[in-house]
Amino acid sequence: MYTLVIYDITDDKLRMKIAKACEEHGLSRVQKSAFLGRITPVMRKSLIDRLKRELGKERGNIQVYMIPDELVALKVSIGDELPGSGEVLII
Amino acid sequence: MYTLVIYDITDDKLRMKIAKACEEHGLSRVQKSAFLGRITPVMRKSLIDRLKRELGKERGNIQVYMIPDELVALKVSIGDELPGSGEVLII
Repeated sequence: MYTLVIYDITDDKLRMKIAKACEEHGLSRVQKSAFLGRITPVMRKSLIDRLKRELGKERGNIQVYMIPDELVALKVSIGDELPGSGEVLII
Repeated sequence: MYTLVIYDITDDKLRMKIAKACEEHGLSRVQKSAFLGRITPVMRKSLIDRLKRELGKERGNIQVYMIPDELVALKVSIGDELPGSGEVLII
């Protein structure tokens, strides 16, 4: 099972914290504000707890979806994934 | 089966076209750059074709995922969905 995290956050620092939390839980960036990875239910729960703590009462929205392996394999990606090279790391 | 579209597009006009294509295919906005909806395979294919045409050779990335109903029901949403009222329509 895969975990997909998408977020809609304006504050730069907070957005970086969310990205860091995703990376530290084994997800890989697939868009500027989207991370995907095949992680265990325990890691997913840990990530969700961390995301809740990080967002706290700040403005923004984070959504976490579970997607079966066989459907991730059917994902359609149009255009360039992660355009913009270096900026990817800080956005 | 649900269809989730997430996109990472800098150009305002193009981003609006992508949003319009999603809406016209029966999806609902769940974040500034994410649409979700329970649509038929035929509609999904039509949407993917339209998204490919709209993006063309422009810079950006669009990803289309299929997610089973029972997993969409388990989606975790942290914070406010669609913060910012009016701006939602134009972003």
